[in-house]
Amino acid sequence: MKFNQLIKSLALILFLGVSTRIQAQEISAMQAPRVVSPEIADNRSVTFRVLSEKATEVTLNGSWMGFGEKLSLTKGAQGVWSVTIDPLPSSMYHYNFFIDGVSAIDPTNAHALRDGTRYASLLMVPGDESKVFQLNETPHGNITQMWYPSPSLGTDRRMYVYTPPGYDSGKDSYPVLYLLHGAGGDEDAWTALGRANLILDNLIASGKSKPMIVVMTNGNAWQTSTLREIPGITAPTRETRGQFQGKFEKSLVEDVVPYIEKNFRVKPDKNHRALAGLSMGGGHTITASLTYPDTFGYIGVFSSGIFDANADMADLEKKFIALKDSGVSNYWVACGKEDFVMESNKRLLSLLEKSGLKHEYFENEGGHTWANWRTYLSMFAPMLF
Amino acid sequence: MKFNQLIKSLALILFLGVSTRIQAQEISAMQAPRVVSPEIADNRSVTFRVLSEKATEVTLNGSWMGFGEKLSLTKGAQGVWSVTIDPLPSSMYHYNFFIDGVSAIDPTNAHALRDGTRYASLLMVPGDESKVFQLNETPHGNITQMWYPSPSLGTDRRMYVYTPPGYDSGKDSYPVLYLLHGAGGDEDAWTALGRANLILDNLIASGKSKPMIVVMTNGNAWQTSTLREIPGITAPTRETRGQFQGKFEKSLVEDVVPYIEKNFRVKPDKNHRALAGLSMGGGHTITASLTYPDTFGYIGVFSSGIFDANADMADLEKKFIALKDSGVSNYWVACGKEDFVMESNKRLLSLLEKSGLKHEYFENEGGHTWANWRTYLSMFAPMLF
Repeated sequence: MKFNQLIKSLALILFLGVSTRIQAQEISAMQAPRVVSPEIADNRSVTFRVLSEKATEVTLNGSWMGFGEKLSLTKGAQGVWSVTIDPLPSSMYHYNFFIDGVSAIDPTNAHALRDGTRYASLLMVPGDESKVFQLNETPHGNITQMWYPSPSLGTDRRMYVYTPPGYDSGKDSYPVLYLLHGAGGDEDAWTALGRANLILDNLIASGKSKPMIVVMTNGNAWQTSTLREIPGITAPTRETRGQFQGKFEKSLVEDVVPYIEKNFRVKPDKNHRALAGLSMGGGHTITASLTYPDTFGYIGVFSSGIFDANADMADLEKKFIALKDSGVSNYWVACGKEDFVMESNKRLLSLLEKSGLKHEYFENEGGHTWANWRTYLSMFAPMLF
Repeated sequence: MKFNQLIKSLALILFLGVSTRIQAQEISAMQAPRVVSPEIADNRSVTFRVLSEKATEVTLNGSWMGFGEKLSLTKGAQGVWSVTIDPLPSSMYHYNFFIDGVSAIDPTNAHALRDGTRYASLLMVPGDESKVFQLNETPHGNITQMWYPSPSLGTDRRMYVYTPPGYDSGKDSYPVLYLLHGAGGDEDAWTALGRANLILDNLIASGKSKPMIVVMTNGNAWQTSTLREIPGITAPTRETRGQFQGKFEKSLVEDVVPYIEKNFRVKPDKNHRALAGLSMGGGHTITASLTYPDTFGYIGVFSSGIFDANADMADLEKKFIALKDSGVSNYWVACGKEDFVMESNKRLLSLLEKSGLKHEYFENEGGHTWANWRTYLSMFAPMLF
């Protein structure tokens, strides 16, 4: 059908070969429409478009909307469905279309990202707020996707290591931030979604952060890397997952830290090691810092806390007091007002208060989102070292 | 609507709380079907499924099919569309669904890949033939996504560097393969689609290839990296593209090679430098090796050749003779029988014949595909150094 239309249009163009320019433009408008999506207006409102003559329903969900919420597109001329949304704050978002109920990335958007097992199209709404995680004209650090032995987990595993600009050509030693992802993520998450490398590039270039190495591990103790899932080892079930309790934290401190300190030029002491994580990675951060109180001098817990409502709070309080006594330069906690982990976050804050461990707390709008985690990293990194 | 169904099902389950296990299973069957896709049978036939009550037409195109060819899925019970295809040879493929004409990746397949500006779902059909590019239980090399200065292009640019297992902990110096992608690709293509790092891991582990460093650059002289495209610098037009003629080759030899030889432990001589590329990258390989005949001792041209049917063949023959006189250890050419570049490939072979430059030629089934390029790399790497 489309092919026929094309042939007709071409024949028409050939037939009207002597036509004026204005006529040619009119003919051009008769051909298959060129679909632009997403289109960001100067006022930061965004129009989404998708071409389908046959679809009966097209909706979209974006990361600025509620989970499961759907926005309907309207079918216009030539089968182009579209919707325009109100201006968005400058940030990085992602979205999916649903074509007759089937999730799809935007076929005309060349930029997609993976969040765990799900792909979505990327929407960058540029502005002052997004500058800290965009690729700017600054020197750039490198990311090494590297394999390391993990004796405590009995396998080689993969991690990403960011080295700051100048690392390769210089001789300096650097402090290290160990940065942990959440459930559903892997060693790729903090760069692909969190843009940690670009955030560090920008903060270092502007003098807001000290140059540092950032180590991004895979926090799923049952995986060697995200690649291991091809062609497919299945994740543990709810029942077998308990076997892995505490194992990642052990491998982080006993395998990863020594490997980094042997293979990179780092300052290998507590005052030059920071640990931060989001959600599940915040839980890993809490556990690792309580279990190994002499390892990390700076601690960041993003959108996380004490997940277990039945946790032994008296026992935890003792551990927090021990951590306080061992000395912590900065314990920084951040959570969004609408985050579903707020109760867990409050349990953590209560323990920090009770134990007398000096800390800072930042609360902002929004929920359990990468927009918040990018913000938290942008605030936390400048406090370090 | 679905939410209502869920509520009803939940109410039913609560109401039937005293029911037997068999009843619970029956209830479960009343709920939304669990869709598995792709499902690979023991005989390597593959079933694709997608859930849509509302779609009027669902088709798919896979990399084992012709370009633009469409295979129809049939709607079955509970809105599950499916199709089963004949057994496929063991390899890595990719595919897209078309939901009422809209391209979509398979929403139940957690593995997708990017080919230029287009995303597709990954299909790994395991078997003997795929072992050379799968993640096996071998030591793994690292990939560094690194930025380097390119004085000849006036900007910092990004490349991927594979270092073989043992590089970090050892002191040895290594030979280097410079490996170039095709049009539409970037510095990510040879690892994401070509799985060059896994191919080298496997060939080195089995003793078939010498340990080597592999450098994968961005062959689009107008880009600094694929990241530069976010939030968007547009590619040159057909008219302005000519400005970049020969510039990538110059930056490769004058910027990249010296940078690698300064920053990595390499053997910095012609007999320890190889250059290979596919399609456009094969063109870059031909040009760079003719322009700088003293730089590379091993040359691989995959699915490529002399693209310009009006090229000055006499002039080229002189350059090939000069390259022959400078000494080449191996000039290896490979092309698929159905490849649309066959005429270009033949022009290259004719020049090699006429100039008397010793070379080898491999021709196999298939066309301009990553399946072939993975095969060619798997054959070429063992011939090196």
